[in-house]
Amino acid sequence: MHTSFEDDSLTLHTDLYQINMAETYWDDQIHDKKAVFELYFRKVPFGNGYGIFAGLERVIEYIQKFHFTDSDIAYLREQLNYKEDFLSYLRSLTFTGSIRSLEEGELVFGNEPIIRVEAPLAQAQLIETALLNIINYQTLIATKAARIKEVVGKEAAMEFGTRRAHEMDAAVWGARAAFIGGFNSTSNTRAGKKFGIPVSGTHAHSLIQAYKDEYIAFHKYARRHKDCVFLVDTYDTIKSGVPNAIKVAKELGDQINFIGIRLDSGDLAYLSKEARKMLDDAGFPDAKIVASNDLDEYTILNLKGQGAKIDIWGIGTKLITAYDQAALGAVYKLVSIENEEGVMVDTIKISGNPEKVTTPGNKKVYRIINNHYQKSEGDYIALQDENPGGEERLKMFHPVHTYITKYVTDFEAKELHKDIFIDGELVYSLPSLPEIQQFTKENLNLLWDEYRRSLNPEEYPVDLSQKCWDNKMRLIEEVKIKVKKM
Amino acid sequence: MHTSFEDDSLTLHTDLYQINMAETYWDDQIHDKKAVFELYFRKVPFGNGYGIFAGLERVIEYIQKFHFTDSDIAYLREQLNYKEDFLSYLRSLTFTGSIRSLEEGELVFGNEPIIRVEAPLAQAQLIETALLNIINYQTLIATKAARIKEVVGKEAAMEFGTRRAHEMDAAVWGARAAFIGGFNSTSNTRAGKKFGIPVSGTHAHSLIQAYKDEYIAFHKYARRHKDCVFLVDTYDTIKSGVPNAIKVAKELGDQINFIGIRLDSGDLAYLSKEARKMLDDAGFPDAKIVASNDLDEYTILNLKGQGAKIDIWGIGTKLITAYDQAALGAVYKLVSIENEEGVMVDTIKISGNPEKVTTPGNKKVYRIINNHYQKSEGDYIALQDENPGGEERLKMFHPVHTYITKYVTDFEAKELHKDIFIDGELVYSLPSLPEIQQFTKENLNLLWDEYRRSLNPEEYPVDLSQKCWDNKMRLIEEVKIKVKKM
Repeated sequence: MHTSFEDDSLTLHTDLYQINMAETYWDDQIHDKKAVFELYFRKVPFGNGYGIFAGLERVIEYIQKFHFTDSDIAYLREQLNYKEDFLSYLRSLTFTGSIRSLEEGELVFGNEPIIRVEAPLAQAQLIETALLNIINYQTLIATKAARIKEVVGKEAAMEFGTRRAHEMDAAVWGARAAFIGGFNSTSNTRAGKKFGIPVSGTHAHSLIQAYKDEYIAFHKYARRHKDCVFLVDTYDTIKSGVPNAIKVAKELGDQINFIGIRLDSGDLAYLSKEARKMLDDAGFPDAKIVASNDLDEYTILNLKGQGAKIDIWGIGTKLITAYDQAALGAVYKLVSIENEEGVMVDTIKISGNPEKVTTPGNKKVYRIINNHYQKSEGDYIALQDENPGGEERLKMFHPVHTYITKYVTDFEAKELHKDIFIDGELVYSLPSLPEIQQFTKENLNLLWDEYRRSLNPEEYPVDLSQKCWDNKMRLIEEVKIKVKKM
Repeated sequence: MHTSFEDDSLTLHTDLYQINMAETYWDDQIHDKKAVFELYFRKVPFGNGYGIFAGLERVIEYIQKFHFTDSDIAYLREQLNYKEDFLSYLRSLTFTGSIRSLEEGELVFGNEPIIRVEAPLAQAQLIETALLNIINYQTLIATKAARIKEVVGKEAAMEFGTRRAHEMDAAVWGARAAFIGGFNSTSNTRAGKKFGIPVSGTHAHSLIQAYKDEYIAFHKYARRHKDCVFLVDTYDTIKSGVPNAIKVAKELGDQINFIGIRLDSGDLAYLSKEARKMLDDAGFPDAKIVASNDLDEYTILNLKGQGAKIDIWGIGTKLITAYDQAALGAVYKLVSIENEEGVMVDTIKISGNPEKVTTPGNKKVYRIINNHYQKSEGDYIALQDENPGGEERLKMFHPVHTYITKYVTDFEAKELHKDIFIDGELVYSLPSLPEIQQFTKENLNLLWDEYRRSLNPEEYPVDLSQKCWDNKMRLIEEVKIKVKKM
């Protein structure tokens, strides 16, 4: 069995190469040079029109506790042979940099800095892996949840995925991300305890099997639980499950609150319509039909298209694993670094794949909101010292197809980043989870419908300022000249 | 921010309905009736010919600590309104049942019980969700890793996926599962510390960017790190990266151990062949080429087919998220339960989908190994009291297409389950991780090649004993009669 460490920390939750780079910087005494890294993804997942940012709470917790413990240091010394001089530097580390970030529930698009870390070079490097690990997953799930909720509409959506989640952290942080994306509840009681998310769930097939009789099992369940949703597909939904549920509901009358039934297999469109008729005929027009079984935005849209009579949706696997695109590819890139003279200099990474060329410089992101419609015209990425809000007539142009331009007037330029840490101090107070969910909703309202469509949405404009674009071109040119000289 | 609990436990890491069912059983005083649940998946993922079981270590840890803490109970009381009588029962709970399981690294196929839980009904119910959460993920990743390693062959495969893993647990337990599946190392230092997995990694693009000069950056890195793998694609692999790596290796000569270079973008087949020539021409025929960039078994097979000169494979996203099939659908079903007279009675769940009908009864799984070839003829699922090992001539038949039969003679029937817990006591001692990896290798050697092929492998036989099959048919018949009478 693995060794269990009393002082286990997440600070070692990094890639080995981060430690090697930190050691190189330290050895060269540039480890405390100020560096700016930006964390961003290139493309919104699922072909969706927008992403929903989540992960900040966990990032804050991680940064606050950032510190190599005794057992971490011992491992680095004894197993990986790092030397005492460097280890004593690591042992003294806490995070002393500044972090600016989007707020959770904020809309995010491709190539937008989600988080900007401005910190001593070695520190900024060491936290990269954990930040990506956290944000890639939670943002992926919040986005998937919002996308599913878009199709579910006003009906309730319940997160049911724990058993298929990728281990335990994914289950609970995924439940939280789903709530941020608009879900109403989770089945995971630990997530309920940890985050205050409403929890839901009644009983499984095993209850029926334990009693070997559906009618008796429903009765036994109802004896202790007033709010009853009976799962009706253990033996035969239409011939046995629904009739037994109705029978028990009639017999118990006001003694219980017969919320309804749950379907978990078979043709949900057909079964829900049949069950609806049976419930209505039996005098239970208000009884709800809950459905589950590998649902996602596609099956839900289809079921609705077929007139399925489903009131509440239980969504597990496809949500919690982001099944159709199980990874968000956010990266973390150095965009600016202090030189020997103490001046910040922008840096670039070139690539054979044009979309992988980084955009240099310490940047800000603005949402350009049309004052008249209260809808967003697009996002605008500018260098630190620019102020698009001060412009009367803002020129926006596509950062790849630069001939695509537009001018915006009568707008508000809302800056999207907030200060989270300043010189190692937490200066941000995280909203409550319901507030974050509400924030998501309000943000979504800023989008024109064409960006919210689940299939083939319009591409939301994320434009660079002229200055930012010029800066990028200048650095590309510099690298080209340098490579040519080799 | 969420409330942080000093006494946080994983016991609440369950679906709400498990607690509701436990309450129903307790209210009816059948909570301590002995129940047998089996955990299994229906289909091997990725279209692979076999699965590799992983997850037992984490299950053991979870079961040993199974206990509702004060804050768990307080949450159930204050937020979910459970009553004191039931809460005092929950508070007293520890796990007192017995668990039999495959060993980690064991081959596993569809519809085979991986774990059998024989425990007081309510306890067996409460642990379902966590067991599925753990085993579904870890088995998925061990299987994916074995599948990739099958294509990689004798070369080294490194797990690089932390940044894309689904939150932190997935990164570390996924790294462990990948090692069980045959991977050689991980980049995650916390996984290295926790499990003793070898860790690997050198530097990233940011090192080059920090120095704004590839040549200088390689030099700086080499000053402190004797074992050098230089990442060569920050600016231009062929024009800048490889020449700079060679230049530094020549200049430093014996001062460093020039292991080789790493390619992380572009056409890996073309670039590796060009780089190979350059390294050979420069007098470094032993320098290795490491490749990474969204690799999986398909890209690796293609790169090899094109004669790519890659010696070491770094595999991240596609492995750690099981990208092409991000969930394993293992389920946990009640197969037998003690009746009022204290006799164990088998139970069944019927479904409109025939593959979802459960197989009743407390069962054992045997691997039928041909003594002559030392290869497996298939697996044989029998009821508890059967002993296929005692048969001279074993009849095996397909559990769906029952006309497909064969007789096996001169075989060993290896029983696959081991006792893990007996009446709540841990009686199993987990092998070391290298031993588990070796066990996987030996198990794979039992398979004929046609089951190991990555594309369209033959279907490995998993057969039911006649008695087991008859028992299932009898119970289906019973349910049909009961439903008809409604």
